[in-house]
This record gives sequence, structure tokens and C-alpha cells, in this order.
Amino acid sequence: MKKVYMDYAATTFVKPEVLSEMLPYFGSIYGNAHSIHSFGREAAKGLELARSRVAKAIGAQDREIFFTSGGTESDNWALRGVVSASKRGKHIITSQIEHHAILHTCKQLEKEGCEVTYLPVDKYGTVSLDALRQAIRPDTALISIMFANNEIGTVQPIAQIGKIAHENGIVFHTDAVQAVGHEPIDVNAMNIDLLSISAHKLHGPKGIGALYIRKGVRVNNLLYGGAQERGRRPGTDDTPLAAGFGKAIELACENLEEKSMALAAKRDRILNGVMSSISNVRLNGHPVNRLPGNLNFSFDYIEGEALLLSLDLKGIAASSGSACTSGSLDPSHVLLAIGLPHETAHGSLRITIGDETTDEEIDYFLAELPPIIKRLRDMSPLTR
Amino acid sequence: MKKVYMDYAATTFVKPEVLSEMLPYFGSIYGNAHSIHSFGREAAKGLELARSRVAKAIGAQDREIFFTSGGTESDNWALRGVVSASKRGKHIITSQIEHHAILHTCKQLEKEGCEVTYLPVDKYGTVSLDALRQAIRPDTALISIMFANNEIGTVQPIAQIGKIAHENGIVFHTDAVQAVGHEPIDVNAMNIDLLSISAHKLHGPKGIGALYIRKGVRVNNLLYGGAQERGRRPGTDDTPLAAGFGKAIELACENLEEKSMALAAKRDRILNGVMSSISNVRLNGHPVNRLPGNLNFSFDYIEGEALLLSLDLKGIAASSGSACTSGSLDPSHVLLAIGLPHETAHGSLRITIGDETTDEEIDYFLAELPPIIKRLRDMSPLTR
Repeated sequence: MKKVYMDYAATTFVKPEVLSEMLPYFGSIYGNAHSIHSFGREAAKGLELARSRVAKAIGAQDREIFFTSGGTESDNWALRGVVSASKRGKHIITSQIEHHAILHTCKQLEKEGCEVTYLPVDKYGTVSLDALRQAIRPDTALISIMFANNEIGTVQPIAQIGKIAHENGIVFHTDAVQAVGHEPIDVNAMNIDLLSISAHKLHGPKGIGALYIRKGVRVNNLLYGGAQERGRRPGTDDTPLAAGFGKAIELACENLEEKSMALAAKRDRILNGVMSSISNVRLNGHPVNRLPGNLNFSFDYIEGEALLLSLDLKGIAASSGSACTSGSLDPSHVLLAIGLPHETAHGSLRITIGDETTDEEIDYFLAELPPIIKRLRDMSPLTR
Repeated sequence: MKKVYMDYAATTFVKPEVLSEMLPYFGSIYGNAHSIHSFGREAAKGLELARSRVAKAIGAQDREIFFTSGGTESDNWALRGVVSASKRGKHIITSQIEHHAILHTCKQLEKEGCEVTYLPVDKYGTVSLDALRQAIRPDTALISIMFANNEIGTVQPIAQIGKIAHENGIVFHTDAVQAVGHEPIDVNAMNIDLLSISAHKLHGPKGIGALYIRKGVRVNNLLYGGAQERGRRPGTDDTPLAAGFGKAIELACENLEEKSMALAAKRDRILNGVMSSISNVRLNGHPVNRLPGNLNFSFDYIEGEALLLSLDLKGIAASSGSACTSGSLDPSHVLLAIGLPHETAHGSLRITIGDETTDEEIDYFLAELPPIIKRLRDMSPLTR
């Protein structure tokens, strides 16, 4: 059966060049990068090359990059580390459409005595800068707003948010897990103090990410143990995964604008195809300020899970939202935040594509989707 | 130049069979194991096979195994998760010779209002069961004693400690990072409630480990986010690394007793060689109850770092203690705890070998070490 992967936002395959970069560190350059002997020094070289590649991708200095186990740990560390070290207070400003790694950490921090403001978003999923300004308090320790949303693809006005944060002397964190490698990012131009990255969203390996921490920003540790990562993040350095991460982010950021434009063109071909062949459908997220590989549709009278299963039977892998929440029967918190009613929020379809998505795959999807929608609607009690 | 790796306790190479098990999950079975489509389901199958292999290695049930980013995260999770969920209180009993992932987490928990008893050890590094019994209080939430020490190799009377813990209704955690794959472990027979494992110490990949949590034991989460690992540990499932971990632990536990005996025989050949050719040397750790691949020597009048660098110039990779503390000028807390004076604790040499260590490598080490010791002693101001 034909297999078409359109769930790039959930995870991506490891590119052959990335795997090649990793392989030597499994079997031959396997030393502990913290050991002082030659096996360790060789591994440390690979680790530092990787760090430098990650730093370059976001305009940071090498020593501002700290490797973590992935986006979730980076997000947990950023929130907990900043708020526990802050001299301003224990108030956090975030948005209603953050990833659960942010939202659930905020909920936990509330139990521990923090206060959190969850900014609403408009119908496109954009945070209002006025609402942000009004939420700022003397005890606000941190503003954490994601760079681009993982479900609906909306890209936030990050540079402006960073400017507001810094005008008010507040630390600014952004969860850029979905944005790195697709959107141009410069932590200095954008006034970003902390930034979360995950390697497996950009053709790197699962199990590694990074937290960028601007020099001078006070952040307590999340984990305690050995002296790795200059005493900030303990645990044996993961040289093989770091090497893959470094290569992947370097590849992803090469000719980024050009590749993003080409990707957006493919995305728009899918958008136009769906809109012209299916009625009672809406595009969720911002029409313009959105990730080049992201589409999110709501089909009236359709149950999301049935749609996904029908697509899966045709070999098409898509999603109804974040992979981290699959299995849950709750409607997406993101779709509710942009104002969709419960029944519509249940019927969403997220299509996320990559540079490797072919025209043939798009044609296949555009041919298979309409009959599935028709069949499901014919069966639906809601359409009778 | 000849290269001889004798730092297996710091990290090990990934075995070819382990890498083979991992490779498909990077490039072809790359789906997010939490996705409901076929790409995700295939990945989930690999993840669950791995979980089952890890469970089997320690006599646990599959659903009691939670993948983490490694030993450090497992240790942090165990301590913080148990003490925050305990109805008994906030007192922890541990030992003075634990890994820093335990000790530094305990120090942090003390700042947060916990009380910690650090049990002393005897001259061989063994925890006294009487001291343990006396340390137990009505508010003791957790006993955390490592299975085997990473520096001196001493294996603790874990089954007896577990029995004492359970007789007193106290949760028992053991950091078994150095023991799994070398010592037979059965969590039920040994009354272990939580157990930390790291894959890269047993020829698996860096960046993955597990925390065994006995069914029914109350443990709060350490990280917050998605619903992975049955809601206990968020972050995209690391199928490739898990697959490698599963294969590695299965291989390590095959014919474990036979392999351990063969390894101990090699170890004892090194021990006898060193003892018979060098004067003023002592073996640190227990003479019998020690890891089969571990040796730790103190040479009078020798500075540990100079010794390591001299060995490194001959291509021999060894360690003065834990790789996690290299770069630190402090003497080993483990060697101080067994009663060594500061100057002796500075002159230690840890030799850790594996099944792959050859007789030829041992001969080379035994030939190279004595002249190095002689030269360093001739240069030492302490011998004049």
C-alpha cells in the first residue's frame, strides 16, 4: 500500500547525512566527553562542534547552548528555572495555546505558589500585544510565548513580544520547537532570553534538544548531579545525538528562506485543492503568518478520529492535533481558544508536510480526501 | 599508538547488535509512537518490545518500567517524586557514597525543607544495616542506597536493605546504574520499589535510561507535558534509543553469572599484577563484594591526575573517579567516606574493564603501569 507521511510536526525521519554524522560516536568515538583521556577528548570535540552548530542556527554564542533530552525538558527547565531564580516574583505570563509542556508545567507551578496569566488569542491564534502589556505586573518573572503553534501553525509576533518583555525588564522565553528550521530566528534581534529546541522535529534524532539561555539571565537548575554542561545540566553528555542534532539544524537552516517558500507553495497547493473540492470546511490558524508546512482544517459534521483512521487505511498519516495528546477525548485546547465550538474542535485535521513531500503524495492526498469526507458525512447523524 | 580502554564505568561502546536494533527506527520506522496512524503504531511496537526486555532483566512487569533520559533523570525523579508524594514525611535516608545525581539532589531537597540522613560506610564502603535501622524515623519517606558504587565497586547488601525498608513501611530506591548487567537483580526478591538504570553503561546508547516504579508506589511526576509513558513521563518516546537499550540489556543479562565470573577473573589478574609489581598500594572497596569489572587503587605519593595523563600518553584510558566529577579538584567523596586521608584520596586510580577487555590489553597495562608509578614517585616531593 502507498504510504504518505503528512505528520512532520509530530516527528520527522532522521536524514541519512544526520545518521552518518552520528554513527562514529556510537561504536568508535564512544568515550565519555567528560573524561580527560583521549577517548573522552575526541567525544568532547564532537559535542562542541554540535553545540556551535546549534548556536549558529539561532544567532547565539556557543556557551549559551545547553543540551537537554528534548523540548519538554527545555520547557520545564525554562519555566521552573527562571521563576525559582527571579528576584521580581512568581508571576508568569503565557498563552492559552501553548504546548502541554508549558501549560501543564504552569498548572503545577500554580500549585506550588506561582500565579499564571494565560493570554487569550484572536480567531487566528495570535496573541494580542495589548493584552500582553496589560498583563505585566511588578512581580512578573517570565513571559513564555511559543514561536509557532504546533497544531494550527500560527507564528507569533516574537520580536515585538521580546521588545515588550525587555522594555519591562522581564525575562522572555519562547518554545520554538516547531519554528526552528522553518522560520528565521535571531535571539538577539528578537530579544529572546531563553529558547527551547527539539532535534527530532527537524530531521535530527529523538531524545535530544537544547535550551538557549542568554548569558547573564538567572536560571536555576532543573536536574541535579554531575558537572556536565558547565554545571547547569547533569547527565552523561550525549555525543552521538548531539552530533546528529548539530548536523540536522545546520542542514535545516541552509537556504532556509528558499526552502520555506517552496514548502509554503506545496502547502498552498493542498490548501487550494481541499478548499475547492470540499464544502463546509475552514482553515484554522493564521492565513498568512503560519508555518510553511502546516495546515489545520475543520470539516463540519466530521469526527476527527474517524477521519484519521480512514486516512490511515489509505496509508496517509495525519493528525488531529498534537501527538502528545492523542488518546485523549478532550477537544484541542488550541481550537477552543481560537473560538471553535466543541463539536467543530473535535473534527479537525492537521496536515504537516516537509521538504521531502512530493507532488505525487499531494495528488494522492487530494484524490483520497474528498471521498472519505463524503462517506463520513453520509454516515453522520449530524447531516441527516 | 595502542589504545586500551579501561574506563567501562564511565561509558561503553554501543555493540554492533545494539546499533542494528536501533537503525530501522531512525530512518524507516520513524513515526511518533504516540500517533495513532500506522507509522506511529509500528514505532510503538518497538517501544513496547524494548520495555518488555528491560522489565525482564530486573524481574519487573512491563508497566512498571518508565523510560527516562538516563540515570541522572531517574535518580532525580525517584527522590523528588517519592518525597513529594509521601504521606509519611520528608525525611530521606541515603549514604555518603552515592553518585552526585543522588547527593546533589538531596542537598537541593534539604534547601526545600527535606531532612536527609547520609549513612556512613565502613572501610570497604559497605553501609551498616544497624546504622540504617537506627536512622529510620516515623517521617522517613524514602531509603535510597546505590546497588554498587561507581568508584570503588562495592556492592551493597541490597536485599537486606530492602527487607528493612519494607518491614518499616518505607519506600526503597536503588541507583543500579553500575550494577545492571553485572549483578543478578530481582526487584521482588530484593524488595526494591524504585530502581534507576542507564543504557550506556551496558553497551546501549547514551541518552536513555529507565526508572522502575513498583506498581502501587506513590511517585509524583518530575516533568510535565504530554501524556507519554502513561502520563508519568512526558516527551516524545525515544523509540530508536529504547530499542537499543532493550537489546543491550537483554545481551548483558544473558549468561550473566558466567560472564561475571570470567570478568572477575580478568579483574583479579590485574589486581594480582599490580599488587605484586608495585609497593605502597592499596585496593579501595570491598575485597569480595565488588563489581566484577572494577578496581580502585591508591598509590602513595602519587597525584591522580598526573597518573591518568601518563597512562593516557600510553593510550590507556582510566579514571580517577566518576567522569561526572572530572575537572573538579576536590578529592573523591567516596574515598574520604571510606576513611582515606585527603592526600591519598587524591592519588586514586579507577580501572574498569568489560567482557571485551583482552589478555593482551591487560598485559600491556601491567607492563606500562609500574614504570609510570616509579617515574612519578621519583619526581614527587613527597618521597624525598
